[in-house]
Amino acid sequence: MATATNIEEMNKTAWAGFNGRLWKEGIDTRDFIQTNYTPYEGSADFLAEPTEATNELWGKLQQLQKQERENGGVLDMEADVVSSANAYGAGYIDESSKDKEAVVGLQTDKPLKRAFMPYGGIRMAEEALESYGYTPNPKYTEIFNDYHKTHNQGVFDVYTPEIRAARRNKIITGLPDTYGRGRIVGDYRRVALYGIDYLMAEKLKDHTNCGHGQFTEEDIRLREEINDQYKALKRMKEMAAAYGYDISKPATNAKEAVQWTYFGYLAAIKEQNGAAMSIGRISTFLDIYIQRDLKNGTLTEEQAQELIDHLVMKLRMVKFARIPSYNELFSGDPVWATLSIAGMGMDGRTLVTKNDFRFLRTLQNMGPSPEPNLTVLYSSRLPQGFKDYAAKISIETSSIQYENDDVMRPVWKDDYAICCCVSATETGKEMQFFGARANLAKALLYAINGGVDEKSKTQVGPKYRGIEGDGVLDFDEVMEKYDDMMEWLAGMYVNTLNCIHYMHDKYFYEAAELALMDTNLKRTFATGIAGFSHVVDSLSAIKYAKVTPIRDEDGLAIDYKIEGDFPKYGNDDDRADDLAVWLLQTFMEKLEHYHTYRNSEPTTSILTITSNVVYGKATGALPDGRAAGEPLAPGANPSYGAETHGLLASLNSLTKLPYELALDGISNTQSINPEALGHDEEEQIDSLTHVLDGYFNQGAHHLNVNVFNKEKLLDAMEHPEKEEYANFTIRVSGYAVKFIDLTREQQMDVISRTFHDHM
Amino acid sequence: MATATNIEEMNKTAWAGFNGRLWKEGIDTRDFIQTNYTPYEGSADFLAEPTEATNELWGKLQQLQKQERENGGVLDMEADVVSSANAYGAGYIDESSKDKEAVVGLQTDKPLKRAFMPYGGIRMAEEALESYGYTPNPKYTEIFNDYHKTHNQGVFDVYTPEIRAARRNKIITGLPDTYGRGRIVGDYRRVALYGIDYLMAEKLKDHTNCGHGQFTEEDIRLREEINDQYKALKRMKEMAAAYGYDISKPATNAKEAVQWTYFGYLAAIKEQNGAAMSIGRISTFLDIYIQRDLKNGTLTEEQAQELIDHLVMKLRMVKFARIPSYNELFSGDPVWATLSIAGMGMDGRTLVTKNDFRFLRTLQNMGPSPEPNLTVLYSSRLPQGFKDYAAKISIETSSIQYENDDVMRPVWKDDYAICCCVSATETGKEMQFFGARANLAKALLYAINGGVDEKSKTQVGPKYRGIEGDGVLDFDEVMEKYDDMMEWLAGMYVNTLNCIHYMHDKYFYEAAELALMDTNLKRTFATGIAGFSHVVDSLSAIKYAKVTPIRDEDGLAIDYKIEGDFPKYGNDDDRADDLAVWLLQTFMEKLEHYHTYRNSEPTTSILTITSNVVYGKATGALPDGRAAGEPLAPGANPSYGAETHGLLASLNSLTKLPYELALDGISNTQSINPEALGHDEEEQIDSLTHVLDGYFNQGAHHLNVNVFNKEKLLDAMEHPEKEEYANFTIRVSGYAVKFIDLTREQQMDVISRTFHDHM
Repeated sequence: MATATNIEEMNKTAWAGFNGRLWKEGIDTRDFIQTNYTPYEGSADFLAEPTEATNELWGKLQQLQKQERENGGVLDMEADVVSSANAYGAGYIDESSKDKEAVVGLQTDKPLKRAFMPYGGIRMAEEALESYGYTPNPKYTEIFNDYHKTHNQGVFDVYTPEIRAARRNKIITGLPDTYGRGRIVGDYRRVALYGIDYLMAEKLKDHTNCGHGQFTEEDIRLREEINDQYKALKRMKEMAAAYGYDISKPATNAKEAVQWTYFGYLAAIKEQNGAAMSIGRISTFLDIYIQRDLKNGTLTEEQAQELIDHLVMKLRMVKFARIPSYNELFSGDPVWATLSIAGMGMDGRTLVTKNDFRFLRTLQNMGPSPEPNLTVLYSSRLPQGFKDYAAKISIETSSIQYENDDVMRPVWKDDYAICCCVSATETGKEMQFFGARANLAKALLYAINGGVDEKSKTQVGPKYRGIEGDGVLDFDEVMEKYDDMMEWLAGMYVNTLNCIHYMHDKYFYEAAELALMDTNLKRTFATGIAGFSHVVDSLSAIKYAKVTPIRDEDGLAIDYKIEGDFPKYGNDDDRADDLAVWLLQTFMEKLEHYHTYRNSEPTTSILTITSNVVYGKATGALPDGRAAGEPLAPGANPSYGAETHGLLASLNSLTKLPYELALDGISNTQSINPEALGHDEEEQIDSLTHVLDGYFNQGAHHLNVNVFNKEKLLDAMEHPEKEEYANFTIRVSGYAVKFIDLTREQQMDVISRTFHDHM
Repeated sequence: MATATNIEEMNKTAWAGFNGRLWKEGIDTRDFIQTNYTPYEGSADFLAEPTEATNELWGKLQQLQKQERENGGVLDMEADVVSSANAYGAGYIDESSKDKEAVVGLQTDKPLKRAFMPYGGIRMAEEALESYGYTPNPKYTEIFNDYHKTHNQGVFDVYTPEIRAARRNKIITGLPDTYGRGRIVGDYRRVALYGIDYLMAEKLKDHTNCGHGQFTEEDIRLREEINDQYKALKRMKEMAAAYGYDISKPATNAKEAVQWTYFGYLAAIKEQNGAAMSIGRISTFLDIYIQRDLKNGTLTEEQAQELIDHLVMKLRMVKFARIPSYNELFSGDPVWATLSIAGMGMDGRTLVTKNDFRFLRTLQNMGPSPEPNLTVLYSSRLPQGFKDYAAKISIETSSIQYENDDVMRPVWKDDYAICCCVSATETGKEMQFFGARANLAKALLYAINGGVDEKSKTQVGPKYRGIEGDGVLDFDEVMEKYDDMMEWLAGMYVNTLNCIHYMHDKYFYEAAELALMDTNLKRTFATGIAGFSHVVDSLSAIKYAKVTPIRDEDGLAIDYKIEGDFPKYGNDDDRADDLAVWLLQTFMEKLEHYHTYRNSEPTTSILTITSNVVYGKATGALPDGRAAGEPLAPGANPSYGAETHGLLASLNSLTKLPYELALDGISNTQSINPEALGHDEEEQIDSLTHVLDGYFNQGAHHLNVNVFNKEKLLDAMEHPEKEEYANFTIRVSGYAVKFIDLTREQQMDVISRTFHDHM
């Protein structure tokens, strides 16, 4: 804790002009924001053009990105240094122009060079190297096989044959056992606000107070973790020192505040290659420093924009070494450097500041980009000027996603951030155990086939009695068996995740990120659902039409004959939509039956990212008419072709899913023909903000907004070399991606999705 | 589990002629012994002289031991290979005579060369090298500092400032945080009886069955441990293969049985340098194989004795790299390769076989030796022939300790073994969390001085009100304050041990030893008491005499004026002995107040080994008249000079301490002038067996028997170079040691102990 003396000293220096008391006496970034920020309700007119330095650096970076693409997706890789915050000295985009970088710091020694991170799994780290033609260093092969076990090995040491079979047959999928779980957002702002020394003193205090009295094993684990966090803070100071900065003390101006905050994040991405490495909610916080400097006359708007542009440029450079199977799941090299802006405060004031405009502006100053994964925390009460500007940028760039601040704020208060695609966590106070997904569509087939996998034809689930005979499927019988199979799936799935997170904590603990968070954290256990719409439509088909299994020579149902019509999810028809709510509710209830690691709170999501293609490949034909091997619909999206009543009816179906049942998020991705929105920009902006207001006012959670037509995609697929497509970005389920970076298979999948041409 | 088929196959080969069913259908070594062994009630007349090969090898080994001593205590050390079961190829005492080794296998590539074992603590492993002039390999400095944390680092990462202070001030002492906890006795016989493949199949089955249903964190930990054990079994096979043996299948004859059993133990001492690495209870087991071969005519008594001699020779060669502070605590390079023989079965038959004689015979065939730490599980019902022979060897060699089988059997059944000095564990079914000791004498001084340490004069214990004023100490007031201080000490001590064992499991798990034990183990939490007799005598002095504190300028009691006489522990006087029982009972009760790691069962011991000297140095003057810095009495021994009523009165005091309150053992070491026992060998043997019968029939737990006089010690101290003293072995608290290997300080301590010259 800060002593009275150094609070006084800080009040004269770094904290001069800042209001409030609580945040000075103990770590409380939110209180600092609330007592110091300046809401902005005006228009985007104040924004500045990119500076020369920005244009020069961004030009160089685009050159590097081009080389990277020409090079097969990777510019350079490290094989000889195990990454850590202080593993490298200083690095710059270009040594010759390093003075032009308003914000400095690379993950390795060179731009876009990918670090070597073996703690998650030495085999994966080496496979990543080899798949791009690099040779692993035998020194590390020895160390991480013979002397230090890695996360991946730990997990496979404890898996059961049942889990291995379930995993192999992809009824549980995309598990973070071959990659880092990610989704932990350090409160990087703390570095700027308090400086590292203050944070170290607080961790020391926490170490002293942890487990006083009797030590349980939980206490001992936490005590070791705090110690590891403390050491990570020390490494951050060393890292910053290599760039000539002393971050032991708080930032004294806007430039330092941006730099210090980025250093916190930089330490995280040097030490972890989690699937999602989000930067969090920093906009309003940084605006306070910018406002102070603008007021003092020590900063101009151009300089302020340059700081934000350069910070965002750094976020566009984040890269990790990945393996081919990972790239298949999560296509287009995403890192989910998710940046959350806007939102409303619990006191009714908007949290929008000028800085939220500046972050949106980066998509103009430097063009569209998938990263940082720009997320607007939406409320119809956001200032109109901001809503209009966000809609404008959305229409121009298709690089923004929207999430409903009005449903998240009651759960996560008003300083949460999106930690991955769509999932919220309270900044600095909460972490998530990420769990990828259970394929509920496949589970339905297991219910019908008595646990035998329809693709591998092996027994994977329990040997329950399947549905026998040649007759039409009986809805009640299917539901009873499906309920049993989901119960099994939920238990086995939770077991699997318990193994993964135990081993992640043991072998690949996120000390750098957790050092910037409270010691006593809330923890959620984030499961996920794949195949959502297909289960709903299949159950609807069984209930409202006639579905007869087509069986192979062994009696295994491998296809379905469907006679008659049935209502489909995505058309605002309660007959289908009620089944959707039932499905979500039932699976969530079953998850709650089981013990979750570290007594975390189970949640679920309806979110598949681009993995819907891989999951679909592994899933047989379904009773809704989807053929074997076809992609599943992404996230909570209705199935392809199912939506026949326009955008609003589709959105209405989504709004019926209660966010409380899927606190990890309900992802919806829509593509709208520009003409459907209006004939000119003004009309389009007006139209889009109305759609968003209406959708979110009904309680929906998330919307990816793409504004383009199918023709553009087809042209980009055939002519990726065209200059205009170099940065052509689209929103997929939960993130944005450069369209030309998708595999052809995934491009085809995106193209086959519904493009709404009417509202 | 063995299938019906391979049981049938084994019945024709390795198990031919063996009775019983249960032990074949699942691991049950005890059942095999019970259904197959041949009790022996005769005399020692059948025993054979050493073979030529034995004399030759033992001669060579003695040469090496001499070189080792001349070399400063260490012959050779490894710096470049991290030890593991399969880290080395084959090694022999002497390559030129390797065919003469009936039992093969060295810890490293050369005899008496000490292995490099960094997992317990890289700093310790390197300090051990450096203190004998070896240079650590920087490769391992890097690996075990930068990439893999070690046990020692883990422990210090979680210790509290309070624990550090308590440790520094030596109120808790000798903690296994700078050395391996040891005391885990694998059931090495399983290798011989079942072969590794059977054991691996059983572990696989356990892995399958562990945590079925829901995985708690305990299940996940255990699943990983089973997997590590499984891998350790694989390494054992590779190790044996280097010597040309295939241990995947059971041993088929006595030679293989001895060899296979030793290989199991060898894997343990290659992978762990625990303080105590006991071989366990193998005598009766091996006798079954020897009997079968003798009966078949494939083995002679000479060959049988050679097998045992060579096995024992190997046990005499076990060495570990230790650091100076360890050597101070546990002087004379002990490894506690404790070997337990004799005992009675639960069915009333004696477990003594001819083999128990053979093991004793090694002390004649190859002379006295501190290792293996030879322990006779004593009962007055043991066959007279065996009792006489053991007494004879005791008198000749002072190399044997006796423990009361009649008090241990009801607790640990009849297949337990001593796992260290005096502590019993059920073989293959139980492990111990070793915890060294709490200095209860110092705790008494803390009670008087309000938690301030009398040596460092700093606050170490809680800031309770001490005893104030210049008056005579009031017994009731002292007792009340002492009770409070013991409560604090017990809690802090348990916390400390919880940290140690959590980290030992995490960073230095004993996979090789635990692979040869049941997966679901009983666990005891073995605390210990130092300064026992001094507390008893101090309390007696305060109660029965007048004790006035002498205070320093700050009012701290640093010495005591004692007026009047008081009864002392060790004279069969209930006034003192009742206080002894009260002390043991009270401390044990307090330990039970606290949570112990892995829900282990707390126990305690009264046992100090040679550490009584170090502990005494750190302890101020006591109210019993013991001066500051003087050694504490070892174990449960009465204080030096306190015993004034002869051996039997001293032993009687000991018998009053209930074993149930100190299940980890109550150590008593006595030295008897040979003349006090009788005028000739027969009289001496008779006399000693009577003493043992009487002592143990009263329920006492343990006795170290030394038969020599003070003059011999004084001469050995002054003339260590004399040939006759090269192997001169004495029993100290809990183990045996070559007298000339003790420091002069410890030699003086031994000499100042009571030598009973009358009964």
